[in-house]
Amino acid sequence: MKDENSIFVGNKPFLNYVTGVVMQFTSRGASEVIVKARGKFISRAVDIAEVARKRFLGDTINIKDIKIDSEEFQTKEGRTIRVSNIEITLGKK
Amino acid sequence: MKDENSIFVGNKPFLNYVTGVVMQFTSRGASEVIVKARGKFISRAVDIAEVARKRFLGDTINIKDIKIDSEEFQTKEGRTIRVSNIEITLGKK
Repeated sequence: MKDENSIFVGNKPFLNYVTGVVMQFTSRGASEVIVKARGKFISRAVDIAEVARKRFLGDTINIKDIKIDSEEFQTKEGRTIRVSNIEITLGKK
Repeated sequence: MKDENSIFVGNKPFLNYVTGVVMQFTSRGASEVIVKARGKFISRAVDIAEVARKRFLGDTINIKDIKIDSEEFQTKEGRTIRVSNIEITLGKK
């Protein structure tokens, strides 16, 4: 899996990410695209995968795999926080 | 899968849900617990599953399955909106 097949979700406009996913499959001929996000952007990553798959790519793409995980970090103030992440792998049927 | 083994995540305090997951496994002897959420609560569901699994249940529980889906709804104003959902199945190793 090349990194160029990954879409990392942040706070850019919603449709930027959807278009990114769709174009990986259509213009660039990818067989798989991974939608990745951390923290509060996880909900958004799920929305993006669902809209790309159901509204734009019709019945040609399905969800191949979903992974969640989390890591602990130290804040500047010395507190330990845990940040979750998700990786949604979409693939051609 | 009985519905009593499902935890539906909303806006109650975070640890209520974590405790709910942990107690299903410990006090009630469940072999699987499904953490479910919709829309913006999806990120929270992932956090809850991760904290329950890694901080409270140690190495005894893993992620058995993750499903995402979405449904379209009509708002009162007649607009169509799509709402995503997630189901994270945690199970005893």
